[in-house]
Amino acid sequence: MSSERAEEGRPAVVLVSGGLDSAVTLAIARARGFRAHALSFDYGQRHRVELEAAARVAQALGAARHVVLRIDLRAFGGSALTDDLEVPKGRAEAELASGIPITYVPARNTIFLSFALGWAEVLGARDLFLGVNALDYSGYPDCRPEFVLAFERLANLATKAGVEGHALRVHAPLIDWTKARIIREGVDLGVDFAATISCYDPDPTGGACGGCDACALRRRGFAEAGLADPTRYAST
Amino acid sequence: MSSERAEEGRPAVVLVSGGLDSAVTLAIARARGFRAHALSFDYGQRHRVELEAAARVAQALGAARHVVLRIDLRAFGGSALTDDLEVPKGRAEAELASGIPITYVPARNTIFLSFALGWAEVLGARDLFLGVNALDYSGYPDCRPEFVLAFERLANLATKAGVEGHALRVHAPLIDWTKARIIREGVDLGVDFAATISCYDPDPTGGACGGCDACALRRRGFAEAGLADPTRYAST
Repeated sequence: MSSERAEEGRPAVVLVSGGLDSAVTLAIARARGFRAHALSFDYGQRHRVELEAAARVAQALGAARHVVLRIDLRAFGGSALTDDLEVPKGRAEAELASGIPITYVPARNTIFLSFALGWAEVLGARDLFLGVNALDYSGYPDCRPEFVLAFERLANLATKAGVEGHALRVHAPLIDWTKARIIREGVDLGVDFAATISCYDPDPTGGACGGCDACALRRRGFAEAGLADPTRYAST
Repeated sequence: MSSERAEEGRPAVVLVSGGLDSAVTLAIARARGFRAHALSFDYGQRHRVELEAAARVAQALGAARHVVLRIDLRAFGGSALTDDLEVPKGRAEAELASGIPITYVPARNTIFLSFALGWAEVLGARDLFLGVNALDYSGYPDCRPEFVLAFERLANLATKAGVEGHALRVHAPLIDWTKARIIREGVDLGVDFAATISCYDPDPTGGACGGCDACALRRRGFAEAGLADPTRYAST
């Protein structure tokens, strides 16, 4: 996991949001020997401090390069993460796994993976890594295994490499892991979770609200893993 | 095809590049009664005058709205359309249909359709229109019917509407048409081809080079359709 290895290995593109899940995903890609190209998006999200976290994570885990692409999802609107709608707080745990939440961003993972695919094609990379999780975010259509498989199939039809028979793979190693397992695996791989931020509605200094869905899932994960949560919460 | 109908009908998102094919595709969407939302991209392309053409086309064909999204495909490089590579000129016709040309932009249609999908989801639209053509551009992996079908399948797994059983469709009405047929159908639907631009390497005033693959296909199409080509070519 040392950064000296950043220039070695086969290239891969890893989507890195600055959150806990994508940090562990990047650590896994590095542990599997890939030369990781970290990709983040400045998409008009409310929680832009996550981009600073993404840069910290990419650096700490030895990414060969980190690119932040600016795209304007606000042009379409439609989500509490990009609009001025209120982020829901203090929802019961049963609510977390039901329905499509207001924080869902239309076609977000499809858009992010499409750019990752473009970069992979330029790099000659055949591996994309994505930190989606179907357990915690069952309400998001684009966090499900069938979505990941459908994108992999598309990638192999959409690209030069795929057409020429070099199979592209979309890796989603966390897809069926509990948050507690994600955290434990991350600790084993040397991920410093203090560098990550999960909150949908952080304060300007990166302090987590403690009450949104993402904070709730993170806190429960650390509790279930039996590990101390290094997050700085505004409320407890 | 009159613009008074712009606010009527079911919503659809139509990718409009400013070229001939997407203009005919927009005309078809309008003729089928859709309220068309035209989407174009400023992606660092060399031929930016095409965005002015896209605005003319959207206006002339009664699009309800035209959005130009700025995305930075230059961040990855890898194509003659976004890099400083030379656009090939004067290629023999046999060459046009063989191999993947240098003007191919990695994952471009995947990225464009992903944004169209995001906008469709916000609009509650279930129809995307794309002017790809497999005959003229057999060298582009993302202009083939199997690509379009794979994206449609992905769209139905990636979105709220798809998950809730409202099938999304990706329409590619030109996919197996000759350029001559595309032009004839466009004329029947009232498309003013003088408003469109196909050239990969136009001069700053929008004059076409006359020698790139796109110009060659366009000239041949008008010739085969037995119609006068209104394009202003720099060379003949």
